[in-house]
Amino acid sequence: MTDTPTSAPALGVHSEVGRLRKVLVCAPGLAHRRLTPTNSDDLLFDDVMWVENAQRDHADFVGKLTQGGVEVVELHDLLARTMAIPEARTWLLDRKITANEVGIGLIDDTRAFLESLDPRRLAEYLIGGLSTTDLPDEFRSGYVTLARDSTGAREYLMPPLPNTLYTRDTTCWLYGGVTMNPLYWPARHGETLLMKAIYTFHPDFMGSTVWWGDPELDWGQATFEGGDIMPVGNGVVLMGMSERTSRQAITQVAASLFRNGAAEHVIVAGMPKLRAAMHLDTVFTFADRDIVTVYPTIMEAVHTFSLRPGDHAPGVDIIDEGSTAFVDVVAKGLGLPGLRVIETGGDVYASERQQWDSGNNAVALEPGVVFTYDRNTQTNTLLREAGVEVITIVGAELGRGRGGGHCMTCPLIREAVDF
Amino acid sequence: MTDTPTSAPALGVHSEVGRLRKVLVCAPGLAHRRLTPTNSDDLLFDDVMWVENAQRDHADFVGKLTQGGVEVVELHDLLARTMAIPEARTWLLDRKITANEVGIGLIDDTRAFLESLDPRRLAEYLIGGLSTTDLPDEFRSGYVTLARDSTGAREYLMPPLPNTLYTRDTTCWLYGGVTMNPLYWPARHGETLLMKAIYTFHPDFMGSTVWWGDPELDWGQATFEGGDIMPVGNGVVLMGMSERTSRQAITQVAASLFRNGAAEHVIVAGMPKLRAAMHLDTVFTFADRDIVTVYPTIMEAVHTFSLRPGDHAPGVDIIDEGSTAFVDVVAKGLGLPGLRVIETGGDVYASERQQWDSGNNAVALEPGVVFTYDRNTQTNTLLREAGVEVITIVGAELGRGRGGGHCMTCPLIREAVDF
Amino acid sequence: MTDTPTSAPALGVHSEVGRLRKVLVCAPGLAHRRLTPTNSDDLLFDDVMWVENAQRDHADFVGKLTQGGVEVVELHDLLARTMAIPEARTWLLDRKITANEVGIGLIDDTRAFLESLDPRRLAEYLIGGLSTTDLPDEFRSGYVTLARDSTGAREYLMPPLPNTLYTRDTTCWLYGGVTMNPLYWPARHGETLLMKAIYTFHPDFMGSTVWWGDPELDWGQATFEGGDIMPVGNGVVLMGMSERTSRQAITQVAASLFRNGAAEHVIVAGMPKLRAAMHLDTVFTFADRDIVTVYPTIMEAVHTFSLRPGDHAPGVDIIDEGSTAFVDVVAKGLGLPGLRVIETGGDVYASERQQWDSGNNAVALEPGVVFTYDRNTQTNTLLREAGVEVITIVGAELGRGRGGGHCMTCPLIREAVDF
Amino acid sequence: MTDTPTSAPALGVHSEVGRLRKVLVCAPGLAHRRLTPTNSDDLLFDDVMWVENAQRDHADFVGKLTQGGVEVVELHDLLARTMAIPEARTWLLDRKITANEVGIGLIDDTRAFLESLDPRRLAEYLIGGLSTTDLPDEFRSGYVTLARDSTGAREYLMPPLPNTLYTRDTTCWLYGGVTMNPLYWPARHGETLLMKAIYTFHPDFMGSTVWWGDPELDWGQATFEGGDIMPVGNGVVLMGMSERTSRQAITQVAASLFRNGAAEHVIVAGMPKLRAAMHLDTVFTFADRDIVTVYPTIMEAVHTFSLRPGDHAPGVDIIDEGSTAFVDVVAKGLGLPGLRVIETGGDVYASERQQWDSGNNAVALEPGVVFTYDRNTQTNTLLREAGVEVITIVGAELGRGRGGGHCMTCPLIREAVDF
Repeated sequence: MTDTPTSAPALGVHSEVGRLRKVLVCAPGLAHRRLTPTNSDDLLFDDVMWVENAQRDHADFVGKLTQGGVEVVELHDLLARTMAIPEARTWLLDRKITANEVGIGLIDDTRAFLESLDPRRLAEYLIGGLSTTDLPDEFRSGYVTLARDSTGAREYLMPPLPNTLYTRDTTCWLYGGVTMNPLYWPARHGETLLMKAIYTFHPDFMGSTVWWGDPELDWGQATFEGGDIMPVGNGVVLMGMSERTSRQAITQVAASLFRNGAAEHVIVAGMPKLRAAMHLDTVFTFADRDIVTVYPTIMEAVHTFSLRPGDHAPGVDIIDEGSTAFVDVVAKGLGLPGLRVIETGGDVYASERQQWDSGNNAVALEPGVVFTYDRNTQTNTLLREAGVEVITIVGAELGRGRGGGHCMTCPLIREAVDF
Repeated sequence: MTDTPTSAPALGVHSEVGRLRKVLVCAPGLAHRRLTPTNSDDLLFDDVMWVENAQRDHADFVGKLTQGGVEVVELHDLLARTMAIPEARTWLLDRKITANEVGIGLIDDTRAFLESLDPRRLAEYLIGGLSTTDLPDEFRSGYVTLARDSTGAREYLMPPLPNTLYTRDTTCWLYGGVTMNPLYWPARHGETLLMKAIYTFHPDFMGSTVWWGDPELDWGQATFEGGDIMPVGNGVVLMGMSERTSRQAITQVAASLFRNGAAEHVIVAGMPKLRAAMHLDTVFTFADRDIVTVYPTIMEAVHTFSLRPGDHAPGVDIIDEGSTAFVDVVAKGLGLPGLRVIETGGDVYASERQQWDSGNNAVALEPGVVFTYDRNTQTNTLLREAGVEVITIVGAELGRGRGGGHCMTCPLIREAVDF
Repeated sequence: MTDTPTSAPALGVHSEVGRLRKVLVCAPGLAHRRLTPTNSDDLLFDDVMWVENAQRDHADFVGKLTQGGVEVVELHDLLARTMAIPEARTWLLDRKITANEVGIGLIDDTRAFLESLDPRRLAEYLIGGLSTTDLPDEFRSGYVTLARDSTGAREYLMPPLPNTLYTRDTTCWLYGGVTMNPLYWPARHGETLLMKAIYTFHPDFMGSTVWWGDPELDWGQATFEGGDIMPVGNGVVLMGMSERTSRQAITQVAASLFRNGAAEHVIVAGMPKLRAAMHLDTVFTFADRDIVTVYPTIMEAVHTFSLRPGDHAPGVDIIDEGSTAFVDVVAKGLGLPGLRVIETGGDVYASERQQWDSGNNAVALEPGVVFTYDRNTQTNTLLREAGVEVITIVGAELGRGRGGGHCMTCPLIREAVDF
Repeated sequence: MTDTPTSAPALGVHSEVGRLRKVLVCAPGLAHRRLTPTNSDDLLFDDVMWVENAQRDHADFVGKLTQGGVEVVELHDLLARTMAIPEARTWLLDRKITANEVGIGLIDDTRAFLESLDPRRLAEYLIGGLSTTDLPDEFRSGYVTLARDSTGAREYLMPPLPNTLYTRDTTCWLYGGVTMNPLYWPARHGETLLMKAIYTFHPDFMGSTVWWGDPELDWGQATFEGGDIMPVGNGVVLMGMSERTSRQAITQVAASLFRNGAAEHVIVAGMPKLRAAMHLDTVFTFADRDIVTVYPTIMEAVHTFSLRPGDHAPGVDIIDEGSTAFVDVVAKGLGLPGLRVIETGGDVYASERQQWDSGNNAVALEPGVVFTYDRNTQTNTLLREAGVEVITIVGAELGRGRGGGHCMTCPLIREAVDF
């Protein structure tokens, strides 16, 4: 007779539009206060944001998710809860407060300072970064002066991680297991280690099945970001092959899924080279079981491949789908006669504007109910005319990092849908 | 009774201007044929070069070094010689032909192809990169098609390494030992592994003392490039702290040198943030024991620190030299009353042009004899007027990667000078 | 005996902070709907804006100005009123619908189309641009196809003028006369011609004294933008010498003002070259007769000159103020013992962020009462602590073109203040 | 009985490959010594050049042209000869030494200084620019100090014109008349005025027929550059429609040619928007009467139009050639069954590299004899294999401005060929 795991449903994501039960988000905070016009490029933000308003709008998004019946967990909270566990704190600080990151001569004092903090405050610095100016006065030795004279991220003892806002990318649940993603840009490398601490020590996450990935290893060219990945159901996973998500990673994850019987078809969208940095979910998301919103300018240039379990090593067969349109390959994979395609709305100017403003970056609460930014009024109207219920969130500040509701959510439990 | 190592003098670099006895260079080749206007930025070249002429000019440089009594070893040769050793070839290919780099599905065939090559040809691909179009026709499976549709470096099975031309950066001899440098830009990460293969297996290099660095480990923020590092003699090492060479690495190397009694003073040039990418040797090099060539616009903004052995952990004391000029700290460190400073020549336009064309990037054959590019005529004249013998090399093609003779040479044996 | 002009006070701006009586603004509209991520750089916008919300926020700003007792006139309205005058319409279309702008073969039809519009709709196209897709179907000849295949602004028959939002720059009242400014960037050249139409034909503007400038002439290097210009009172005019406002223009305007007895002292702020594009009013504005808000990082690097009437041609003497701080020269010019300086608020990150978000771009309603963007909370707090009344306007959309309340207003009547 | 004009054949260019009789070039000089890494972008150069070697290589090119029987005239020489004519000097200095360019307060002294120079030295400053540091000491007033504190081109009293090296662009002979081109970039606007001085006053040029263009007028969107224009013979002119050469200009020039009976067919190559800055002659030139060298990546994306004389105003009919390839429209226009197309040589890397290095920028001495840069060895080999005689010129320095032999020559007399 045990009282622990029976009450909690298992983590797992079985579709893109099935009932969302539990989701991970990350509120704006200290990391975004570090953004300036000078450093924002390096930190992958197009513009600075008004943090207080971004927090207000994010809280509103969380409120609407909660009202919609979703259990929302927040990264600072999860990390604070994890840091309250002594062995977790030791594990993480052993890996963060090193000669290669903090620099010799600053390790002991920095460690002592961080150890002196309560878990919540520690979590804030782990996500928000630790600047030399954050240290108490008694630390200010020659080593601190040397650090102040360094450039870019090196001025930090722990770098800020503002892209944690986009929880979608760092880990992704594909059916019953998760991937711990090696992210493309150096500015985001620190995110996955925080997630590993949570998955290793937090009681709600420990024991999860990990398909692939480990932030303590070097993955070379095998980078993988959740914005490119969609477990759409029917044993199918969509993967955008982009600057950020490489064939080296895609094939490894496919092999793991096939080996474990977790999926039987990976559909790869080879993104055009001209806009290499773009995630699949910035130009293609689901709004209902058979409705997708699409930015046609990019999606028309996609080259599609199917990956299937193979008899011979490495266990993955690759089929070049040639000139068959990506949406048609997807429809067939789902056993549907076709997908209803809603293109980004408006004339040529409006369409490009809305894609830029994450107009195609919808995230579903359940089939036919999605969250999108308020500013993409024309695309939202088209979705509504197609019978989709659209719940808007305020994008004035949140959208400045070029991510929408889909990017800002990492589903932990989402139900399957029938096709 | 052994006849081998007695004849060869030990590797070691004991000054910036003492007699150069042995040096490592790398000839232009296949890697530079891969450079295009589209990819040159990613590969850190400002422009494409005419490879045949670059090879001619590089060979002329090598000829002048040889005529000057220097033993010149070339990277393709060293690597070919190393790849002729079966265990070395196995060691290196085990680390290069992996799922994370080549991608699953291509490993076996790629490995088989590379194993079929003679050592010279293998070395060419290891430095020049392996494109999917280099494979024999029988390899062309779905995996190759997928690779062709990838972007940037991911289209390669092994990426080209054109910056091997600048052997100065990858490893550096500091007195009697060497560092295996973690380089800043991802496009250069593959260089150090090639050097480790050579230092591990090549008979002329194996057994060398390594102060710091190992390309098989992750060094995080601790990056270090030889263009910033100068073992000037008298127990002093100069280190530019720049975007590419970080305090995290500088302090670790200093600690290792102090611990091993190899140096007793590291002088750090904190480079101004505006031109963060610049190596120290692009704005400051030695032409004689007491003559330096300097680009004043940058050097005037340098903030200087001295690192000295300390009694307490981590064994390095840091002294902020405040407003004392870098050249004055260096002169004092060398026990000289002062340094004779030759500034980049010409008016405000010419001076900026010549710094850009590596006008300050002199490398000494012996005290008072240096190699520079022919095009920096005004700086060359000033050096000659100061009594320095200037031997020119043709920079029309070689200079397009923004490196001169100092960057293109990694001294292996250089004698000390008296101060 | 006439009843018209006696009631209207004469146009004229006699200070930066005296009672604002009448002001020109321009609402966001069609021109901003043309902005896309692809063309925004060419049109000088950092980002696209949500036009509906920008309109809402601009209307709120206008409402607050009106409530504050200011008469607000809007550019579309003025231009529509002007275009209702047949000779004004002829004058303007003769200059806009030419072979050099529209292209031969499209002149007659374009002219006929524009002539068929009511004045309001015509004004919208004059400001918002006329695209080939705006033409009725019957126009679609080979010439239209050729135009569609053209790039950038050439695809337009009349280019969009989104920077009309910043009415401050295009013309500026300096005491009792106005300048018709030659703007720096080609994307803004069309603005001044619209203003000339208004000043020539609109009954409220015709007959104004023009100190300098005429959009029908070529001014070469003599460019001048109102964001750099401040008639602060006491016969003094401040002029930022920047990339956009050149010495060639500054000296000509000074000569005109001196010759006409309109001013007796021009204080030039030589902006540092690093941030050459910046207007003076993005780093320095007045909040009260002796209070200025300042971004110190830039203002500390300003080199100040005084221009005074001279006896000899060209009638302007130049005094190099050397190392005297700009604010001190200004205080002395105004006969004040000093200026109270409020620096952009917050730490190093927040200060840079707020300058970027137009935190220093205050515009005064009357002495001690200013409008600023809501998002610059820290600078706003400092202003309030200094006793300034701060009325906030919403900057989420309006601020994306990097201009604040000062940029968005062209004072037409502002009273003097005592010093 | 007159001895003057009978001996000289009339200026006129009647083909792209007929015997070249007389050509205008411009040697590198003072303007290129002004180029620095900081200003080269503004001055449209990708890199700085070694001026002495560029001069040597240019002189070698001139020598080969002369040996080939071509009369070569040089811009500095022509301008010096023109400046020896008092009324020409007055005419030009009246237009250059103005308040808008030099600034009030500097006009008289600058004019006096320039008037004191011999014609050769004056021509050097007119092309090379006049910096404040070039003035004699007695000029150094407050106005000079103000000028020194200005940014970019404003620091000059006359701006440097390094792109005069590309004489092809500034004026172009189309059969029996010439166009005086309004150039796209502000950095080149000054070039055409120098040419007008020559065409107005130099005895060898005065009285020429001008089809279109006048640097003293404002041409708005109607910009036109000779690199896009080719009078190929048979009454046909090719015109690239690019960022630099607009439909507004193309249609005006076509109308003038048709009206004067100088041509009867203009073939427009609508360049793809992605590489908008590219002139037609960087991707397409003639090597023989029926041989063209082509960069296929760009030329495949060209959209072709034919312009023909029309009965109705404006006298130009436009035919959209739809999907017919540009080379096929050209062949038909010349009455040829087809053109032999030689693509840029080598693999995908080499082809892109050679296009970049002006590999397609051949200029013909006579049918089947062309000049190209030495560095494009693969394209040169393909031309030779097709029976074309290739004379190479050294491109190491000259090519850094991204222009080859075609760009550096403005044919003044070229014979027709038969088709």
